[in-house]
Amino acid sequence: MNLSMITDLYELSMANGYQQVLPKEVGVFDIFFRRVPDNGSFVVTAGLAQAIEVISDFHFSQEDLAYLQSLKLFTDDFLTFLENFHFSGDLSAIPEGTPVFPREPLLTISGPLIQTQLFETILLNIINHQSLIATKARRICYAAQGRPIMEFGARRAQGPSAATLGARAAVIGGCASTSNLLTAEKFGIASAGTMAHSWIEAFPDELTAFEKWAELYPDNSALLVDTYDVINSGVPNAIKVFKELVAKGHQPVGIRIDSGDISHLAKLARKQLDDAGFPNAKITASNALNEATIQSLLLNQKAPIDNFGVGEDLITSASDPVLSGVYKLVAVKHLGQTVAKIKISDSREKVTLPGIKSLYRLYNKNSHQAFADVIALKNEQLTTEMLVRSADPLDTKQKITLSNFDSMPLQTDIFINGKVVYTSPSVMAIQKQSQAAVQELPEETLRLTNPNKYPVYITEKLARLQEKLLNKQAH
Amino acid sequence: MNLSMITDLYELSMANGYQQVLPKEVGVFDIFFRRVPDNGSFVVTAGLAQAIEVISDFHFSQEDLAYLQSLKLFTDDFLTFLENFHFSGDLSAIPEGTPVFPREPLLTISGPLIQTQLFETILLNIINHQSLIATKARRICYAAQGRPIMEFGARRAQGPSAATLGARAAVIGGCASTSNLLTAEKFGIASAGTMAHSWIEAFPDELTAFEKWAELYPDNSALLVDTYDVINSGVPNAIKVFKELVAKGHQPVGIRIDSGDISHLAKLARKQLDDAGFPNAKITASNALNEATIQSLLLNQKAPIDNFGVGEDLITSASDPVLSGVYKLVAVKHLGQTVAKIKISDSREKVTLPGIKSLYRLYNKNSHQAFADVIALKNEQLTTEMLVRSADPLDTKQKITLSNFDSMPLQTDIFINGKVVYTSPSVMAIQKQSQAAVQELPEETLRLTNPNKYPVYITEKLARLQEKLLNKQAH
Repeated sequence: MNLSMITDLYELSMANGYQQVLPKEVGVFDIFFRRVPDNGSFVVTAGLAQAIEVISDFHFSQEDLAYLQSLKLFTDDFLTFLENFHFSGDLSAIPEGTPVFPREPLLTISGPLIQTQLFETILLNIINHQSLIATKARRICYAAQGRPIMEFGARRAQGPSAATLGARAAVIGGCASTSNLLTAEKFGIASAGTMAHSWIEAFPDELTAFEKWAELYPDNSALLVDTYDVINSGVPNAIKVFKELVAKGHQPVGIRIDSGDISHLAKLARKQLDDAGFPNAKITASNALNEATIQSLLLNQKAPIDNFGVGEDLITSASDPVLSGVYKLVAVKHLGQTVAKIKISDSREKVTLPGIKSLYRLYNKNSHQAFADVIALKNEQLTTEMLVRSADPLDTKQKITLSNFDSMPLQTDIFINGKVVYTSPSVMAIQKQSQAAVQELPEETLRLTNPNKYPVYITEKLARLQEKLLNKQAH
Repeated sequence: MNLSMITDLYELSMANGYQQVLPKEVGVFDIFFRRVPDNGSFVVTAGLAQAIEVISDFHFSQEDLAYLQSLKLFTDDFLTFLENFHFSGDLSAIPEGTPVFPREPLLTISGPLIQTQLFETILLNIINHQSLIATKARRICYAAQGRPIMEFGARRAQGPSAATLGARAAVIGGCASTSNLLTAEKFGIASAGTMAHSWIEAFPDELTAFEKWAELYPDNSALLVDTYDVINSGVPNAIKVFKELVAKGHQPVGIRIDSGDISHLAKLARKQLDDAGFPNAKITASNALNEATIQSLLLNQKAPIDNFGVGEDLITSASDPVLSGVYKLVAVKHLGQTVAKIKISDSREKVTLPGIKSLYRLYNKNSHQAFADVIALKNEQLTTEMLVRSADPLDTKQKITLSNFDSMPLQTDIFINGKVVYTSPSVMAIQKQSQAAVQELPEETLRLTNPNKYPVYITEKLARLQEKLLNKQAH
């Protein structure tokens, strides 16, 4: 996977310039976001495994180099540097699946500025995309209250990798399975799916189509019942086939409803199935579902649905399709000196947190209940009684004392001196860790509408550094 | 580019079934959509070149086959078929860049059902995505009234191919350039971009940063002026550097404003630049732009902006991020007999147009003014006086007589008997053809808000076939 050329031209223009005018500088960049999609309270991180691959495999082919030379922007020295590129710096990051909050450093990369500048576009692309979809999947799975969600949006995803890596992220966020075979194959995830309407239409009638399916897949007989008429044709035909399956010693799987008033149809179909002696036949619902419709089906309408298939609204995060993560310079090191950097802005809320930092999750003493996160300067020791302020520059700068907590650092080392020192867990293991980490958050943080804000603090030292740099810039 | 495994499991389950129970059937599928994103009146097609590549290169590796075998769903015969897969059918499609309307067949594929079923997911993925972005780009370029749009959304795109193929589609829709180097390299498109705020911050002060840039890129001096203060620092520093450049015989390019009140800042900056003797220095605006903000800047606020850089709202079509194209069975051929197929539905508007069809654009006689499209049965001759009805099943079925027109078929042959017979034009050539085709539409169809609906008709023969099949299904 060589994605080195998926970069904004200006990254190379800047790196070419740095080589000539700031060749010794080490640049430290943080990735963070300011706004959670769908007005949720947190984002579920994803994409780190692909980010590691991209950095490990970062190179430029002869064809790429010839193209870059043709632009007449870059020196020969710079093209030679690209030809021999390998990352020699450090990278730490929050593991995939972790719930994270605005302004927290998800990933921190440190290395020669000429190298680190080059990763901005592709790292943001990967982390923004997968975290967006994992976050959406978490919302949808929350709405489904433990019922399995099948991701099946490949046909509506924004291109091939959005389908494949989006499905991966959807599983990190909690989906039970995906219809996308490449994702299932590459990441060890359950694949799922049955038949399309075209299968039914290819036969003279619905019953024949169902019978043929049951002959071929006697143990995978989830029958699509809405091609003609769910209640008068689909379910009665499915029941006929289920009886034949049982007679042959097989267990019918169930039905899928993909159109119409899902709640009403599910209730009628449930009764038909129960009356026919198939209380264990599952009802799967699909068709334009998202967290709002699923929550309404289950909570308001008490629809007897066992599984959901979710397509375009999940794979594109359609209601809010962008996670606006940024890659900001937080420090420059030169000749052993580290200079913290800040990006100021017309809008106070956009001011960045300067310097190289560590992020901690705080737990009530001897419990698994997280109650706040704290961003500190790197190597700063958390004290048992600690003065902090809100990390949100729009919050009043009231000081708060935290005490009586356990703390856990959230970032972990990924690259040291250009070598990978981290092994990504399997996607299913990430999903499990993610669910555990989400469960540690306060319950009121998890809900879909107007969730409670989870506190993220900065230490006094970091607050003072930010103030000092702000004052310096203002003069 | 082997994307064969980016497919929903059920496509393979169905194909495996067809091999056993309907091995001789030829299936004909249409791709079409029902709804135009952003309530526009048309979609700009894109993605055909990649669709051709996918079909040409469709194959399964030994690793893929071993994985598929492990699912215990497929017969050995079917796995052998996949191992030796090559497409042997026909495909016709509307060339990229063409404005198209709801229910029109964008692409028609005909071949053994066992083959054509397998392409559904990936063809929809590619065509839906690229057509979505080309359509969004057309809207944004329309708002910019001829001013160049630079696409620079890679960091917010939904994964690597969304960045790369999305940028390709954005150029088809009218963008002048992209910041994405891979897209620029692979598709012969102009790359563009200058510097990020991190360049400015890496130096002790803004003037030094600008001077270093101008030394490195004396003929590419588009300076980012909003890191500290546009009017009191950015533009005055830029003017100093521009004067030095002129003294050395170079032509300053201009400035970029990426934050704050773009309209207000652009007016003040324009005056500063003009007063300093740089009336030709261009002002580029960026930061959360889309067709609505660009239209407002130009029409309401008369902001003196020469170029726009557009990111996330374009590359994700953020305001409406899904084009819901579908792949529907329209005919099955068996032993020389062609049987038209229809998908009926609870919602009348979802009823499909059955049979193998041709699509024509109608022009006023001897002019380039298109006034309607007509969908006919394949090989049906358009008559000079022609009775038609609306293609929209929700329209009243009033019959209309068309006369005195020239007609042009919109689909062209792409594959014949599995062989590609079409050469895709370059992306820049597609852009040019697209702009010409859009200009042929009625002016009131082009506007962004409440555009006039462009008439799409079906012939009487097609209307009667649809009615016949609907009546047959109802019984």
